[in-house]
Amino acid sequence: MRTTRADPQPADFTDVRATNLAVVLRHLRANGPSSRASIAASTGLNKATVSSLTGSLIEQRLLRETGLSGNRIGRPGTALALDGSAYAAIGLQVAADRLTALAVDFAGDQLLLWHRQFDGGPAGTGPGRAVSEVAALAQRAASRVRQQGRQVLGLTVAVPGLVEESGTVRLSPPLGWSDVDLRGLLAGSLRQPGLDVAVANHAGLAAVAELRHGGHPDLTYVTGAAGVEAGIVTDGRLLQGSRGFTGQIGRFSLGPAGSPTLADLAGVEPLVRRALPGFDPESLTDLTPAVEQVATLARSGDPDVLAALRDTGCHLGQGLALLANLVNPEVIVLGDHYAALAEWILPAAASELARNTLAPDAGGARLTVSTLGLHAAALGGAVSHLDRVDTGTLPASP
Amino acid sequence: MRTTRADPQPADFTDVRATNLAVVLRHLRANGPSSRASIAASTGLNKATVSSLTGSLIEQRLLRETGLSGNRIGRPGTALALDGSAYAAIGLQVAADRLTALAVDFAGDQLLLWHRQFDGGPAGTGPGRAVSEVAALAQRAASRVRQQGRQVLGLTVAVPGLVEESGTVRLSPPLGWSDVDLRGLLAGSLRQPGLDVAVANHAGLAAVAELRHGGHPDLTYVTGAAGVEAGIVTDGRLLQGSRGFTGQIGRFSLGPAGSPTLADLAGVEPLVRRALPGFDPESLTDLTPAVEQVATLARSGDPDVLAALRDTGCHLGQGLALLANLVNPEVIVLGDHYAALAEWILPAAASELARNTLAPDAGGARLTVSTLGLHAAALGGAVSHLDRVDTGTLPASP
Repeated sequence: MRTTRADPQPADFTDVRATNLAVVLRHLRANGPSSRASIAASTGLNKATVSSLTGSLIEQRLLRETGLSGNRIGRPGTALALDGSAYAAIGLQVAADRLTALAVDFAGDQLLLWHRQFDGGPAGTGPGRAVSEVAALAQRAASRVRQQGRQVLGLTVAVPGLVEESGTVRLSPPLGWSDVDLRGLLAGSLRQPGLDVAVANHAGLAAVAELRHGGHPDLTYVTGAAGVEAGIVTDGRLLQGSRGFTGQIGRFSLGPAGSPTLADLAGVEPLVRRALPGFDPESLTDLTPAVEQVATLARSGDPDVLAALRDTGCHLGQGLALLANLVNPEVIVLGDHYAALAEWILPAAASELARNTLAPDAGGARLTVSTLGLHAAALGGAVSHLDRVDTGTLPASP
Repeated sequence: MRTTRADPQPADFTDVRATNLAVVLRHLRANGPSSRASIAASTGLNKATVSSLTGSLIEQRLLRETGLSGNRIGRPGTALALDGSAYAAIGLQVAADRLTALAVDFAGDQLLLWHRQFDGGPAGTGPGRAVSEVAALAQRAASRVRQQGRQVLGLTVAVPGLVEESGTVRLSPPLGWSDVDLRGLLAGSLRQPGLDVAVANHAGLAAVAELRHGGHPDLTYVTGAAGVEAGIVTDGRLLQGSRGFTGQIGRFSLGPAGSPTLADLAGVEPLVRRALPGFDPESLTDLTPAVEQVATLARSGDPDVLAALRDTGCHLGQGLALLANLVNPEVIVLGDHYAALAEWILPAAASELARNTLAPDAGGARLTVSTLGLHAAALGGAVSHLDRVDTGTLPASP
């Protein structure tokens, strides 16, 4: 929801309660099992309020009592913890070469992680068939979660490219899609009227996952898996712009008109094609084994491969400097395949980042490597539904 | 103040009251004089709450009763309006060629607008002397406002370049300053312990002014007065990054290492030097007359001047595309000298913006021209203190 300056909303006591429910949930999310007394002491809420709030949350099966109180404030043995038994959230990740489905319960524990080979590129089967495959996978993941007795809080699909807030994929060069109403098609195919279905850019969702897993509130996640895209979190919130079309750094051309773009110079697929010249381009349906081969050759000291990695790092660093000059992140996270190759890419990238940023020391930006793996965007899609609950929007009854 | 995810603040009834005070103030800011009944009807607050809130605001001299009720709800003749008589806010703008001071009262009416010639560039008198001149002007503006019986809510100084949240100018190439603790020096020199003094980037403050004067919550303001810098407002808030070092688009190089930067290619001073080759560079202490001369020559159809303007527009459009691809603004506002030359710059800039943005139609970005003049940043500095009150932080007693 967008707030415009001329149209502020009055606060009422429902807001106060929602805010305080959020305070309790986020305290437990950050600190693990805690007693009511320790929640009150840490949050500044009084004990009666904490009892009332936690009572509602237990009734809704978002919290449970546990014997595992780790501290001495309050009666021993009556700690509260997030309850993973009643709710789950699902993230799907669509790439040109594979589909990923991931589900977590409300406590954040992973319930499933599935990969499916997929031929979703521009030369593939086209959006119609691809959407059916995505819908089928979503359906199977939702069924599995429900068989375990959990209500699905929501499902978010991560795709590369430009995605409107409505869930229409406006343009996805890696998938060859334009104007695909993915959310509408999925909702129609899933036939579960109450289910919250969303579609969003994969880099933005990966940034949300990084933020939730201990990331800094000013972080930018960079993926080179399909072009080069960035997910920009600023002051703890994902930068959405007016229509959601943010983070397209791969589009930048570093030379005169017609020059190669940053995606051409610093993307992972161009790197693989250069580092493995004998590689059959047609066989590039899954980048992961090729990236592993590049890493193996680099480890063995292959000079051409090392030069290709260094070049990729230099160009990437120039792109990261654009980000540092414009949005001044505290942390830049190299994601997915970049993470697997970081040992060779990062030094050159860090040096070019510093050289091309106006502020000393790259404006304080630390260049780090994601530990969330190739499914960070799927994870971000799932946890975005936990975030909604954590900010005080409790789930409706099934 | 930064909110991190792990440390949410509980809500209490003080927050509710502050939020509702803000709702009333912002309703009156947006809609002009209104009766209590009409405020209640428009905001959803009940009448007793509105009476209590407006009572406090009248007591604090932020509102006054007026006979000029424009609507028929409630007793005729008892409308409330923002009261400009008790408080004022001051903005100062530091450029290489001049100082500007501007003050507004709490109702937003301009109380003073002063310009002073200034030799603040790298070849000028250096930060020590320059800071004294800024402090003297601030002192005079504050005295004038106080002589009129108004309490100064705060004073913000706008400078080009990188400014830390603490008010230290980390690096200002146009002024030749680095690590100047402008806020500390000013506060020491003004000797008014209670006075809220701040320093911020000029493009960011100009964006705040645009937002307040009817701007879209996703707007980017671009200035070419000293290098090329952008103030980025997203979802109604100024993008600050981790240290405030945002919007440095002039730093981008559009070619290989060593190539000219966007500031070299699209800045106003390089344009003037190219369009007016006989112009003595040493006389460029004030760009405004030179910009007027360029406009006069363009109006007379001078082909070299028209070509220089078109070139500037093309390069600027490439820079704006970086912004559109990364932050997806709804509106891009060409500020200060660009506004005076927009007739010739804007068509080429709009065309390059669209051509270089991945999203169709530049992601919806409309390219517009500022109407706030050369002192938009000073205005932004002043109104930022009104914004604080409008969000519910009422002024302390003098």
